[in-house]
Amino acid sequence: MLDKFPTADGQTSAPTGSDQGQHPAFPLHHGGKIEVRPTVRIRDNEGLSLAYTPGVALVSQAIADDPALVYDYTWKSNTVAVVTDGTAVLGLGDIGPDASLPVMEGKALLFKEFADVDAVPIALDCTSVDDVVETVARIAPAFGGINLEDIAAPRCFEIEAALQERIDIPVFHDDQHGTAIVVTAALMNAAEVTGRTLADLRAVVSGAGAAGVAVTNMLLDSGIGDIAVADSKGLVTSDRTDLNPVKRALAERTNRSGITGSIEDAMRGADVFIGVSAGRVPEPVVASMAPQSIVFALANPDPEVDPAIAARHAAVVATGRSDYPNQINNVLAFPGVFRGALDVRATRITPRMKVAAAEAIAGVVAHDLCPTMIVPSPFNPRVAVEVAGRVAAAARADGVARL
Amino acid sequence: MLDKFPTADGQTSAPTGSDQGQHPAFPLHHGGKIEVRPTVRIRDNEGLSLAYTPGVALVSQAIADDPALVYDYTWKSNTVAVVTDGTAVLGLGDIGPDASLPVMEGKALLFKEFADVDAVPIALDCTSVDDVVETVARIAPAFGGINLEDIAAPRCFEIEAALQERIDIPVFHDDQHGTAIVVTAALMNAAEVTGRTLADLRAVVSGAGAAGVAVTNMLLDSGIGDIAVADSKGLVTSDRTDLNPVKRALAERTNRSGITGSIEDAMRGADVFIGVSAGRVPEPVVASMAPQSIVFALANPDPEVDPAIAARHAAVVATGRSDYPNQINNVLAFPGVFRGALDVRATRITPRMKVAAAEAIAGVVAHDLCPTMIVPSPFNPRVAVEVAGRVAAAARADGVARL
Repeated sequence: MLDKFPTADGQTSAPTGSDQGQHPAFPLHHGGKIEVRPTVRIRDNEGLSLAYTPGVALVSQAIADDPALVYDYTWKSNTVAVVTDGTAVLGLGDIGPDASLPVMEGKALLFKEFADVDAVPIALDCTSVDDVVETVARIAPAFGGINLEDIAAPRCFEIEAALQERIDIPVFHDDQHGTAIVVTAALMNAAEVTGRTLADLRAVVSGAGAAGVAVTNMLLDSGIGDIAVADSKGLVTSDRTDLNPVKRALAERTNRSGITGSIEDAMRGADVFIGVSAGRVPEPVVASMAPQSIVFALANPDPEVDPAIAARHAAVVATGRSDYPNQINNVLAFPGVFRGALDVRATRITPRMKVAAAEAIAGVVAHDLCPTMIVPSPFNPRVAVEVAGRVAAAARADGVARL
Repeated sequence: MLDKFPTADGQTSAPTGSDQGQHPAFPLHHGGKIEVRPTVRIRDNEGLSLAYTPGVALVSQAIADDPALVYDYTWKSNTVAVVTDGTAVLGLGDIGPDASLPVMEGKALLFKEFADVDAVPIALDCTSVDDVVETVARIAPAFGGINLEDIAAPRCFEIEAALQERIDIPVFHDDQHGTAIVVTAALMNAAEVTGRTLADLRAVVSGAGAAGVAVTNMLLDSGIGDIAVADSKGLVTSDRTDLNPVKRALAERTNRSGITGSIEDAMRGADVFIGVSAGRVPEPVVASMAPQSIVFALANPDPEVDPAIAARHAAVVATGRSDYPNQINNVLAFPGVFRGALDVRATRITPRMKVAAAEAIAGVVAHDLCPTMIVPSPFNPRVAVEVAGRVAAAARADGVARL
């Protein structure tokens, strides 16, 4: 259930005429989903003179004298910008900055609800790599981290890397790494529940966009046995001449067994299918996978493998949907990741911090592990706490923590 | 009195070691002064699927189909960016974006407290006119208005004009127009309480920065009899060769009586002195003003005219300080100005909207008018309401309202 909070004047905001008779998402979104609130209350001139002039000048001067104090005396220490250029919004594609705003607000809402992180939606009216990097770098001083969101591949890879080069706060493209962290957590547990380790598994990833690339790289870093990737043109292999630099790098790291042909050829005998694109895998192809197969069909709202078909052939099934068991939901990762990074004032998110997050998520259900419980519920309050703690420790271990 | 609110975990945040023994502004600022909060509460998967995926996709698609709906279904309709480049922060000067943040947060706090406007601090790591304009234009989609703050003159004039050309939401440099509105309101009432109108008055403005230029222009637009402006080099007159374009334009509109010499020469026989710079005016110069003189000595914390001296010679005295009567405080203007602009989804702030704001502020104390009550208290709850109503009506009259 979702309630509309009372507004400042004590009224609950009512749907307007245009909302009536529509999907309940519309009245819920009326006026937006977030607000900025003071954490101190001004009652009189004395209060005004502490929180604003002249008192605030002392605090500003102190930060001017010692820039590190900006973390102590401003909201930077708890605040993330949720930045999009509106080019790859959910499954809707390039719908522009205005239309992306409800998604960014939703993300901000989740940051606060799940990890008490203050998050500000920033929807950019520019899309080139240079423009996005330059703009975000210029607004970075007020923020303790940057969550990139719904930026189309392959620009998202360049933007993230170039921006992290420029600024000394964490830059994290959630569509890449949030997904990769949760998939890795889920696959660790799916392996365990079927009596194997990641090293025992050969996987096929359908999709070589932001999620597919990041999932593949993280699983390789985590020691998966072998992995092959397919995009809409087929398997991503070194002999292809149509690959962008990111896919070319992927081709060099993947498919060690040298499978040729179509994605269907790769799936024959594979232990794991990970769908992060769209389309439908026919039942005979699912049936051709190895015994004890693992199917993560994450396209939303239509999983790449019909859950009923997956149930007939696979030992473990996960989707992106909340109405089936094992929902692979980024909300398991990003709130705790940034909570941990902010808690130690991290300068970046390292690979070890991502692995720590995946291990923390997997660990939350360690004692309840079964084929329909390989990841925790998004509403399990332990998740963000455990992730934050492990991420903060990893940041310290990697020397990227200021605290 | 100022209270620290409890934090999310029910604890009140305590000062840390480094705060102890310092000015009370420091513990108050610990962790910042604002937060982002959800206005809807997610309790379960059903809520998650309305406020986030898949429900949010319906709302995003609706905005993609009809961009005007961004005002209905996001926080844009109630949200202002408080933007600085950190070059002219209070009396501290060019202290940079990090050190400016406490001031921007303070402003955001006041926006919410006084007019229920959500305001987001944006501290820019760039200072050229083109960079600031370009950056703010690119982040504009998420906001219903832009409050420029603490940007040095003369760049502030160019930035405001160029930015307003680029975007279709109000751009308002508070150091200019907020000050001008409150000074105009105060001078309207000071004239009335001494039995005159603005047209009867000859004024001298000390300071030709953001505030001095805007105050002068607004008083001219409001029909003041005559007005002369001085900067640190002397009276701003057309025969000077060292004037920037803004001051050159000012020279052409001001000093109709053709006074030459120093600011002291201009003050002899003047009805009004308005100080928006610094320095001290000697008592004989104050004494040389016309009978029933009006002194607004707004420099903080040290007014240009010692209040005790002003009291001996002037009929009406105002300062920028809260510990004397007649505090000229921008908080009387900017919350209501943006409340009114947002309420009608205005595309800009017109001169008529500023005059409407001044008249509204002056009107709040119409029935209590006396030499020590020419402006209302910042804590008078009628101020923002009256200002918002008049500003919204003026926006409609000027054809710049979307609603």
